Amino acid sequence: MSGGHVSLVGAGPGDPGLLTRTAIARLRGADLVLYDALVGDRILRYARRAQRFFVGKRAGHHAMTQPAINALMIRAARRGKRVVRLKGGDPFVFGRGGEEALALQQAGVAYDVVPGVTSATAAPAAAGIPVTHRGVASAFLVVSAHEESAFASAIAALQPNGITVVVLMGLARSAAIACRLIDNGWSRGTPAAIVVDATKAQQQVWRGTLGALAADTVEVDSDGAGTIVIGDVVAVGLQVEDRSPGRLALRQGRRKEREAFSRAFGGHHVNG
Amino acid sequence: MSGGHVSLVGAGPGDPGLLTRTAIARLRGADLVLYDALVGDRILRYARRAQRFFVGKRAGHHAMTQPAINALMIRAARRGKRVVRLKGGDPFVFGRGGEEALALQQAGVAYDVVPGVTSATAAPAAAGIPVTHRGVASAFLVVSAHEESAFASAIAALQPNGITVVVLMGLARSAAIACRLIDNGWSRGTPAAIVVDATKAQQQVWRGTLGALAADTVEVDSDGAGTIVIGDVVAVGLQVEDRSPGRLALRQGRRKEREAFSRAFGGHHVNG
Repeated sequence: MSGGHVSLVGAGPGDPGLLTRTAIARLRGADLVLYDALVGDRILRYARRAQRFFVGKRAGHHAMTQPAINALMIRAARRGKRVVRLKGGDPFVFGRGGEEALALQQAGVAYDVVPGVTSATAAPAAAGIPVTHRGVASAFLVVSAHEESAFASAIAALQPNGITVVVLMGLARSAAIACRLIDNGWSRGTPAAIVVDATKAQQQVWRGTLGALAADTVEVDSDGAGTIVIGDVVAVGLQVEDRSPGRLALRQGRRKEREAFSRAFGGHHVNG
Repeated sequence: MSGGHVSLVGAGPGDPGLLTRTAIARLRGADLVLYDALVGDRILRYARRAQRFFVGKRAGHHAMTQPAINALMIRAARRGKRVVRLKGGDPFVFGRGGEEALALQQAGVAYDVVPGVTSATAAPAAAGIPVTHRGVASAFLVVSAHEESAFASAIAALQPNGITVVVLMGLARSAAIACRLIDNGWSRGTPAAIVVDATKAQQQVWRGTLGALAADTVEVDSDGAGTIVIGDVVAVGLQVEDRSPGRLALRQGRRKEREAFSRAFGGHHVNG
């Protein structure tokens, strides 16, 4: 293996300032970077001397299959390359990092995992929403809407009792998610928010209620990089504004015309 | 306010390499740093030019009350100081960051929030445990054992259905937590782990089952900076070892003699 190595690195929610020191060091030392859709150019710039390949999913289409990504990492490491597998957020939070780590382990390739700031907590924070708050929520559930059956059983188990629910990759299914919670006894008036492109310059926030989400009236102009937050913490009352350089900004949510969205994303639109 | 400002900054789980770039910038620019118990010297070193005050909890005793911390931050910011309120993990994950942000907002003091890598995901990761894993767990619940009643209701709602449970600040109550899950129908054979001092040089990991946790046979030599992980992801099978410089290390869990623990922690011991 002659010094080859793979790092599974979390790139954080989007703002390059939320990269960790170790993530930056791994990017600077990399020969090869395999990155996902949610990783921006300002982050990739740290890996100027590396070959960089997009291996993620765009417009519902995978640039490379998971077995192909695994094979590429293993081959490069065996040739002595320092490989960075760069993922949005944290590699072990819905990032398939566990599967990749297992593949590397089975192949006998040296690897490490560099945790990142997960969007599950940072996206709400960027909108002024603490996922826990004394007297309001002392637990939070993080789910992905990608795996439908597992999601359904997780949600079915939840009672409205001081838990914050954070849904990742669920923009396209937010109405169904909201309906399911209401069916489980959650009040339609439960505060809810959607944070799109959290911590990035183009961040957008929608705030409303579970009932509004269920009524399918929320439109989000995004291809899916959004976080849904449901629970009383949404109404804790923090007003986040641009008051200092480098801070995470909150902008008021806005409704986009379906037409504009359709133009940008090829006739497909996301109902939040 | 003459340029005064407060940053609520997440210091991550312990390893200084898991500080974000923005957290480091805030520490370097700080006049005053108010830090909690879980923040180590290697992190505080970034704030060499700042006054640094410990305001956290040690040996079950708060160095400073929450209202006193709020008043100190507000007073310093009004005098034009750049204040960093430095918290282990993420400021909004059981960090009372929301309360501090509200106090600053009500006082009209400019502030920002710098999310950190939370121990809720990084502590399991450091032990080779992905909190989500395809086909194993597609949701995770993060709870703190500090707020007993809220915790009880969160746990009561949980069915054994592909969810990972992460308990922060729960070492002293892990037997009670495990019993509660077993009462709710979780199998005694459900894999469980405890990660103490995650990502630090002295990290320790215990692996076993929910039944072993419930039987109160696990001993951890820590004053409480531990994370409990319960669910099938614990048995995914990643063997994390020291194979490269700077990587997060996993050591096999070990049982300490009660006597040694009692000597170190004044007759008080933690049953995992």
